[in-house]
Amino acid sequence: MTLQGKLLIGQRAVSGHSPPINAIDPATGEALEPAYPGGGQAEVELACELAWAAFDAYRETSLDERAAFLETIASEIEAIGDELIERAMAETGLPRARLEGERGRTCGQLRLFADVVRAGEWLDVRLDPALPERAPLPRVDLRQRHIARGPVAVFGASNFPLAFSVAGGDTASSLAAGCPVVVKAHSAHPGTSELVGRAVQQAVAQCGLPEGVFSLLFGSGNEIGQALVADPCIQAVGFTGSRAGGTALMQTAQARPQPIPVYAEMSSINPVFLLPEALAARGSEIAEGFVASLTMGAGQFCTNPGLVIGVKGAALDAFVASAGEAIQGSAAQTMLTPGIHGAYQDGVGALAGHPKVREVARGQEGDGPHPCQAGLFVAAASDFLADAALQGEVFGATALVLECADLDEMAAVAEQLEGQLTATLQLDDGDLDAARTLLPTLERRAGRVLANGWPTGVEVCHAMVHGGPFPATSDSRSTSVGSAAIQRFLRPVCYQNLPEGLLPEALKDGNPLGVSRLVDGKREA
Amino acid sequence: MTLQGKLLIGQRAVSGHSPPINAIDPATGEALEPAYPGGGQAEVELACELAWAAFDAYRETSLDERAAFLETIASEIEAIGDELIERAMAETGLPRARLEGERGRTCGQLRLFADVVRAGEWLDVRLDPALPERAPLPRVDLRQRHIARGPVAVFGASNFPLAFSVAGGDTASSLAAGCPVVVKAHSAHPGTSELVGRAVQQAVAQCGLPEGVFSLLFGSGNEIGQALVADPCIQAVGFTGSRAGGTALMQTAQARPQPIPVYAEMSSINPVFLLPEALAARGSEIAEGFVASLTMGAGQFCTNPGLVIGVKGAALDAFVASAGEAIQGSAAQTMLTPGIHGAYQDGVGALAGHPKVREVARGQEGDGPHPCQAGLFVAAASDFLADAALQGEVFGATALVLECADLDEMAAVAEQLEGQLTATLQLDDGDLDAARTLLPTLERRAGRVLANGWPTGVEVCHAMVHGGPFPATSDSRSTSVGSAAIQRFLRPVCYQNLPEGLLPEALKDGNPLGVSRLVDGKREA
Repeated sequence: MTLQGKLLIGQRAVSGHSPPINAIDPATGEALEPAYPGGGQAEVELACELAWAAFDAYRETSLDERAAFLETIASEIEAIGDELIERAMAETGLPRARLEGERGRTCGQLRLFADVVRAGEWLDVRLDPALPERAPLPRVDLRQRHIARGPVAVFGASNFPLAFSVAGGDTASSLAAGCPVVVKAHSAHPGTSELVGRAVQQAVAQCGLPEGVFSLLFGSGNEIGQALVADPCIQAVGFTGSRAGGTALMQTAQARPQPIPVYAEMSSINPVFLLPEALAARGSEIAEGFVASLTMGAGQFCTNPGLVIGVKGAALDAFVASAGEAIQGSAAQTMLTPGIHGAYQDGVGALAGHPKVREVARGQEGDGPHPCQAGLFVAAASDFLADAALQGEVFGATALVLECADLDEMAAVAEQLEGQLTATLQLDDGDLDAARTLLPTLERRAGRVLANGWPTGVEVCHAMVHGGPFPATSDSRSTSVGSAAIQRFLRPVCYQNLPEGLLPEALKDGNPLGVSRLVDGKREA
Repeated sequence: MTLQGKLLIGQRAVSGHSPPINAIDPATGEALEPAYPGGGQAEVELACELAWAAFDAYRETSLDERAAFLETIASEIEAIGDELIERAMAETGLPRARLEGERGRTCGQLRLFADVVRAGEWLDVRLDPALPERAPLPRVDLRQRHIARGPVAVFGASNFPLAFSVAGGDTASSLAAGCPVVVKAHSAHPGTSELVGRAVQQAVAQCGLPEGVFSLLFGSGNEIGQALVADPCIQAVGFTGSRAGGTALMQTAQARPQPIPVYAEMSSINPVFLLPEALAARGSEIAEGFVASLTMGAGQFCTNPGLVIGVKGAALDAFVASAGEAIQGSAAQTMLTPGIHGAYQDGVGALAGHPKVREVARGQEGDGPHPCQAGLFVAAASDFLADAALQGEVFGATALVLECADLDEMAAVAEQLEGQLTATLQLDDGDLDAARTLLPTLERRAGRVLANGWPTGVEVCHAMVHGGPFPATSDSRSTSVGSAAIQRFLRPVCYQNLPEGLLPEALKDGNPLGVSRLVDGKREA
């Protein structure tokens, strides 16, 4: 497929006219062809108007039609073949195996949402039948279902060019909910975005859906993204990226005449608590697992374990020594973009220059232009508690170990943490009481609590929560990974005393869709 | 019970120190004793700190304990006896039967939430068991439940001194979710608030719960409310009131270092669409039902039908004539407060003085100081479409009838409406096609769609949606009436690979709570 460097608006390919983007091969620093001239206000409006025009028809497609569309997207992505992997490798510096895995995850995610659509749990059907004889007042027939909110603006993420990008989790869950999608491509991987965008465009046509169900915009700077979030047709936003980027979108969304929800997944340092028995019994094994999780993908994961908390002493010293040794041996990895590399260098520099922070180890230096040299630092928990700046995320393979005076200080650290995507406990049987003490705090502070594992590697399933209190996300009521992500793009509607002929299928007598329902408050599976 | 005029903070009664509030008897204009000196920042902080201190223990009370607490509140409110009704009558001007009914609704609502807590649907339990043999990667055990968000700030509403006030729907659903509550009493009914607040205080003590589970603050002006929403311990807000009040709280909540959700139910004109066959066949019957709904409780309901839309012609003329006659015969009713009466007079005056609006009828004039004289006005739909000001809510028993050129113009009106709590269709069999054309728009614009009924009289049940797009509410993902209201105060947490001894009861093997669960995406009732 020849890349065209154009915006995909509905079924059209539209030339941009604002300053062009070229992907940079981070391994070489070279610009990749083609250039992607950016769109502006007119292209945003066109995409959003098409999305709005498609909305009523798309949201009432049958469960099977919508599921088949999601499955067709997956097949079309697979049909691109190796060209997609090679372009993504060139644009991101990520290795082949990782990108092949990510493609599998992306297509698996689309197929999971097809199953979710068919199962119909997301409709949250509730029926309260009429009670004409009730005294003092009869009850009329009341039925509830969830409907799609409206067109969704999705922002591609730099660190998952497939799974959190054009046809990633936000897009899959929006489309599953019945919402048309307008994607703003991440400027780091426009070619990958175009390839996937054309696959979605193709699926829209194949399934005979209105063209506005999907559009893909390019544009450098924040202007086009802000215009997209401000557009009156847009009814929700999905975003994965920096805290600054996410909070800027939140402000725009709130300043609209009609404010809309923003689901921004932003910033997390994913604390790992080393409980004493586990630390004493298997400190070096834990260190090994920790460094593997920390350095995977050059640490460019929102669930990267950036903070480790233990009680000061010989066992923690041994852990730090083991982890430091592993860090020293870790090879440099190419980071995704010059910008991410620059921010990483700044973050590591700030830690290294902090008067209360001690450098334990650095990984190997790299040759290429944007290498991630891993890092391990140590500070006293009391210094961490006294300096909010030490909670800042360093996006990349660097972590800070905190030495606590005792378990009480460990609890104080947990209590002072900002909202997190994850919190991890390394524990053995003898640590259960200490874990039980920490758990209420960790539940309040994080979306996912793990024991004896590592937070990287987020399973796409029904029980997953990839979310958490601010600033981990802008909206802790939701998850951006897993089937519950669909709920972000729905809202409930109640139908009172509607004639059978007007009721939506999901609410008709006899349960023609065969979905789980709450009848008079009782669950009927 | 002697009213003390004090703030109730935990188990304490605390004297305020800022300018006092006295309730005004709206029927006489007289100030009622005692005075309620307002609290300030110190009282807000004390209440919020107590709420925070109570949170972890309260949210992990057993389902039975929490349900029993809600039932005890209901019993304690009933135990106040007639003193509550008499004080509420004096403070609001509402008649005895209405307030007795509202007390029944309030206590019924608390008991419904007790049932909801016990049933455990709100936990949204999801289990994805470990798949150790899965290739290429095994899956670890993942379990999800919902937990309480944290302390909730609840603002009492003027128009439901019991059902949307101190122990009303927001408080009941917050407490059901496991969230402590700090109520800011509405200044129109402080005595009623104190009586109910003491009943809740009593229930907290009887059930042996931490005192911070409930506090009740008084204060004139916006200062104390804004301080409450800004307090870092507060994690969500429930509000019923004006659009200006709600949007001010939204801004405060968004400006916090950690933004929090605001559930503000604000403004709705509840359009009623008179479809041609129904209008021709039973216009005068519809007019009768309409005027009864419009004038009930002096029209002081958020679901009051303030806008009626029909196709211009003899049938609509006859409807307007019938409705106008009924309006003329309608007695004046005392409004809740001088402020509400003043705003009503302004709103009616603006309609009466609008060059494109024709006055059809006014109700009887009243003798008392704050009478609601009903009103009916007519305008051309084209003028309504051209002037956004005609969409403003007139809180009280006044409605505007729109004359449309045809069904297309009716659809245009529907499309241009702001977000609404309700939209009503008056239809007969021959109107089904017209209704089918309007329905997608009404679903997008409203939280509840009704046929052949009236929007006033909101059933407290499982399928109810008392919500809707902005500005009907600040958050269309939710309802403030009915069992789904509990979801506003919850968030999901995922537990990965936790030892059985650390898992919450709801997630343990063998389903000890006997709740409905989603296992590998399949519903187990």
